[in-house]
Amino acid sequence: MSYDPQNIFAKILRGEIPCDKIYENGHALAFRDIHPKAPVHVLIIPKGAYESSSDFSEKASAEEIAGFMRAVHAVAEQTGVLDAGYRLIANTGANGHQEVPHFHVHLLGGRPLGAMLQAGR
Amino acid sequence: MSYDPQNIFAKILRGEIPCDKIYENGHALAFRDIHPKAPVHVLIIPKGAYESSSDFSEKASAEEIAGFMRAVHAVAEQTGVLDAGYRLIANTGANGHQEVPHFHVHLLGGRPLGAMLQAGR
Repeated sequence: MSYDPQNIFAKILRGEIPCDKIYENGHALAFRDIHPKAPVHVLIIPKGAYESSSDFSEKASAEEIAGFMRAVHAVAEQTGVLDAGYRLIANTGANGHQEVPHFHVHLLGGRPLGAMLQAGR
Repeated sequence: MSYDPQNIFAKILRGEIPCDKIYENGHALAFRDIHPKAPVHVLIIPKGAYESSSDFSEKASAEEIAGFMRAVHAVAEQTGVLDAGYRLIANTGANGHQEVPHFHVHLLGGRPLGAMLQAGR
């Protein structure tokens, strides 16, 4: 598969579509999901053109990967879920129910999530 | 919170408890979940003493983080789910329903997972 530069997250990264930004660093951008599944539901995406977590985990540099994880931590801090806890989900490919072909991690929190989860896109 | 060296994953890392190993590199170990929620259900853990994804994303070095993500990719490859897709889940703290206090990512695949998910521990 090749990366589709017209996917919605690519458009958000280029500023062509607005987002409710939570955090940004040199390697990642984080913004609220427009269809939240929990009181806190933020998407963290790399700035590089990676279609999925497979693509990212194989091809991204150590710096990009670390920058991405620092962004995940900053989002947990800024949204106030660091102490109470949260869940991270990355859906990959068809079986994983991935809907947007740009790697993204869902951070969900703000209430006890339990073992069952509406995993969303 | 301080890391509990008696948690079950610490014991697996020390070889005190066996595991069904899938993959290992300098920074991470991957093994099958003993209560699988999907045909492929593997846990990937860092070798460092990180209690949660918060701890890992804040304190791990770029090398450790990248090594961890390479392990995730290797597991997806070795278990044959790379093309069809999979889901990654990291439960953090009480609200995230984290059960073992050593950072771990669940990789689930082997069938279409849909939007709903038994997220497990």
